[in-house]
Amino acid sequence: MKASSHPARLAGSLALIFVATGAAASIPPPPTAAELALQGDDVAWSIAEGLTTEIGPRQAGTEAEAAARRWAVARLGQLGFANVREEPFDMPTWVRGEEQAWLTGPFHPQPLAIAALGNSASTGRGGIEGPVAYFASYDDLVAAPDHYVRGRIVFIDHQMKAAQDGSGYGYYGRARFSGPNAAAKKGAIAVVIRSIGTDSHRTPHTGVTSFEPGVTPIPAGAVSNPDADQLVRQWKRTLQMRTNETPLGYTPEPLRLKLVLTPQLLGPRASGNVIAEVPGSDPAASPVIVACHLDSWDLGTGAIDDATGCGIITAAARYVMSARQPRRTIRILWAGAEEVGVHGGKAYFDKYGAQRHAVAMESDFGADKVWRVDFKLPDSAKTVADRIAAALAPLGITRGRNPASGGADVGALVQAGTAAVDLQQDGTRYFDLHHTADDTLDKVDPAQLRQNVVAWTATLDILANSSASELGE
Amino acid sequence: MKASSHPARLAGSLALIFVATGAAASIPPPPTAAELALQGDDVAWSIAEGLTTEIGPRQAGTEAEAAARRWAVARLGQLGFANVREEPFDMPTWVRGEEQAWLTGPFHPQPLAIAALGNSASTGRGGIEGPVAYFASYDDLVAAPDHYVRGRIVFIDHQMKAAQDGSGYGYYGRARFSGPNAAAKKGAIAVVIRSIGTDSHRTPHTGVTSFEPGVTPIPAGAVSNPDADQLVRQWKRTLQMRTNETPLGYTPEPLRLKLVLTPQLLGPRASGNVIAEVPGSDPAASPVIVACHLDSWDLGTGAIDDATGCGIITAAARYVMSARQPRRTIRILWAGAEEVGVHGGKAYFDKYGAQRHAVAMESDFGADKVWRVDFKLPDSAKTVADRIAAALAPLGITRGRNPASGGADVGALVQAGTAAVDLQQDGTRYFDLHHTADDTLDKVDPAQLRQNVVAWTATLDILANSSASELGE
Repeated sequence: MKASSHPARLAGSLALIFVATGAAASIPPPPTAAELALQGDDVAWSIAEGLTTEIGPRQAGTEAEAAARRWAVARLGQLGFANVREEPFDMPTWVRGEEQAWLTGPFHPQPLAIAALGNSASTGRGGIEGPVAYFASYDDLVAAPDHYVRGRIVFIDHQMKAAQDGSGYGYYGRARFSGPNAAAKKGAIAVVIRSIGTDSHRTPHTGVTSFEPGVTPIPAGAVSNPDADQLVRQWKRTLQMRTNETPLGYTPEPLRLKLVLTPQLLGPRASGNVIAEVPGSDPAASPVIVACHLDSWDLGTGAIDDATGCGIITAAARYVMSARQPRRTIRILWAGAEEVGVHGGKAYFDKYGAQRHAVAMESDFGADKVWRVDFKLPDSAKTVADRIAAALAPLGITRGRNPASGGADVGALVQAGTAAVDLQQDGTRYFDLHHTADDTLDKVDPAQLRQNVVAWTATLDILANSSASELGE
Repeated sequence: MKASSHPARLAGSLALIFVATGAAASIPPPPTAAELALQGDDVAWSIAEGLTTEIGPRQAGTEAEAAARRWAVARLGQLGFANVREEPFDMPTWVRGEEQAWLTGPFHPQPLAIAALGNSASTGRGGIEGPVAYFASYDDLVAAPDHYVRGRIVFIDHQMKAAQDGSGYGYYGRARFSGPNAAAKKGAIAVVIRSIGTDSHRTPHTGVTSFEPGVTPIPAGAVSNPDADQLVRQWKRTLQMRTNETPLGYTPEPLRLKLVLTPQLLGPRASGNVIAEVPGSDPAASPVIVACHLDSWDLGTGAIDDATGCGIITAAARYVMSARQPRRTIRILWAGAEEVGVHGGKAYFDKYGAQRHAVAMESDFGADKVWRVDFKLPDSAKTVADRIAAALAPLGITRGRNPASGGADVGALVQAGTAAVDLQQDGTRYFDLHHTADDTLDKVDPAQLRQNVVAWTATLDILANSSASELGE
């Protein structure tokens, strides 16, 4: 965070902004929610720290996620929220097994750091070995003739580039989302991708992949960026061999990989959402929903994905509640089973999608500073957006031109027409850590986390107190 | 590297220095070794790249180390060196097995990233579990009464700090070198240390530990810094519980660890040194020895430890050879089995220690820039040191006041009286990577590697052409 946007330095300017909306009187007005957030008692940090320390990894459908729900209910109750509850649902559960990979030839055999992708098939304990079919990108794989792929282990080598808005995830991420399905359809025996990540550590990035109905899943894993670099160096040498520039003492042979991945599909297992509320003063007013997800991938402790998100939205709701009862109910959704298919978001929508929600927000992109705010609001809410933009400007947050989309767990609501506000976090280093063993608490910057909480509190305070004419009932 | 010390910019100033020592004539003098190094053909990079790519990890006593020796003999011969040979020796070999660890209570069980230390005993496949005895430092463990340690798993939590000269390794490293022995003597059932490393990634730092004769080895491992942080957070909570500030839903119990570490001592196995020479023009002149080590730890590919060292010394020797035949023989030692007890260095000393060596040097501290030069030279060599210091100054290298020690593989020679010159590399980030899976080629900065080669070439050129009166025969 730049010095100019440090929360402490903004106390004065924000106080001015909020006081200007109050009555001019000799008795000082009570502190606003944003002022309380600036004086902060580190609720967001304590949630992120507690959840990652006392539970750790909490993969959807496992006992760890159930323990996290019990923890969440206890913590949200302790914080003074109303209507705290678990809302269970079942979802198909996949769990990691043994995972090993080796470059087996033509050079001296050596191990690679690999993580199976969610929904990967098993190789069996004995593993599989085969020649590599190299593709520079997902598009190259799609364009390749089947006979080049059949019987081989596909490798997709598309290196993700970092971007502040995280916009590379959709483009580069196709190698993970769709690469295994495309490879399976062409007859590959397995697929290995370069991790969808921007770091250079031997911590591969997992994440879910999907096979179309009728396509038999194949083993699918991601190797870390340094391991992908190594594979590519060996691949280039095997090409040199074919042109007779043979490295020392090796005979020309195709590059070969061996994989042992033994994940299992356990079938349906129990997951659930945890919900808590700040009851609004106007029973006729539609609620504001703020979301994060409680589950994490299994390799790390899910600090930035998404314990901090739960900390941020919960701290903000509590500061709004502490300042004064808001007009609208604030509904806090700690969604279950987001990582493996947004099952919690779907369960919420199935149950509550017919109800009107005034606006939806989600925090699920780490804990680095908010730098931009995007809106998707009805025309009637123009002054709401202006007030939010004015409140956020002193925090170094500018107004964007993109329509807000709300995030995965409220995505169905927003697609069905619910208004949304996105507080865009800086994602420059997010994909260094995303879905790796390195997603741990030491990566969270407490100063930037506090900036998030202040921004969320100011925004939520305005939204939860917006009028019927602005955001409807 | 700072712009002011970039090798390319130094070409002019170094050329002036070296030309000044040549004859003033209308025919330009042939290029000096340092000038050749500045024009560099990246021999150092190609050695580091080739060894790490074609062999990868090469743990002492394994088939991978034997493959690396064959690779080395072929590569050193191809580079035009004389008397290239393997010199075999046997050494006791320890190999890693399965390794897993969990925090098992009082909180929800969660895994830790752990690596066994060299010479660790096995827990057996079923593992062991027990309460943790926490120590802030090695000194605290040594001072503790036996009854506090007996039957427990000792944890030593001393976090290494980064230093440019790497000087923290000796101090903080005692937790690894001697901690397991101290814990075993007090009756601990196992020992876990915070990695001797300065990074925050879930890549634990291995390395050898030693048990005194008569002390039965116990299982010993290192957890990564983020995992040590997690263990400490849980440990602090268990102390809070005893004072009745109980975290949510947990009953007061001691912190517990479970370990599964199944390494094996294989007994004596074959290792060996690889030696090559640049023959000197004066058969009566004693040789200069330059060393690196060929073996690596098994977790990474040994790029900075020590493939780059072998690249640096070999490139420098080749540039000296290419410029003109040196007066003294340069003997290149790629030592085997350094990591597990300097067996290669000992074998070299056993065979050649009675011969006089003019001076010894070693490169075994990564590939970041040389920033200081230290000497341990006889009084007769004052002008040699002055010439070296003058040649290195344009590269941003200053003259230190510490006596040179030469490095592990030439340590016995230096202790027996051989002169030494140390080109001290910047170690600020060395212990981020040292002995981890992250010691891979992507961590090597080619620009800084080139600066090393230029510095080594300039130094070696002066030493290998020093007179009998300066460094003796």
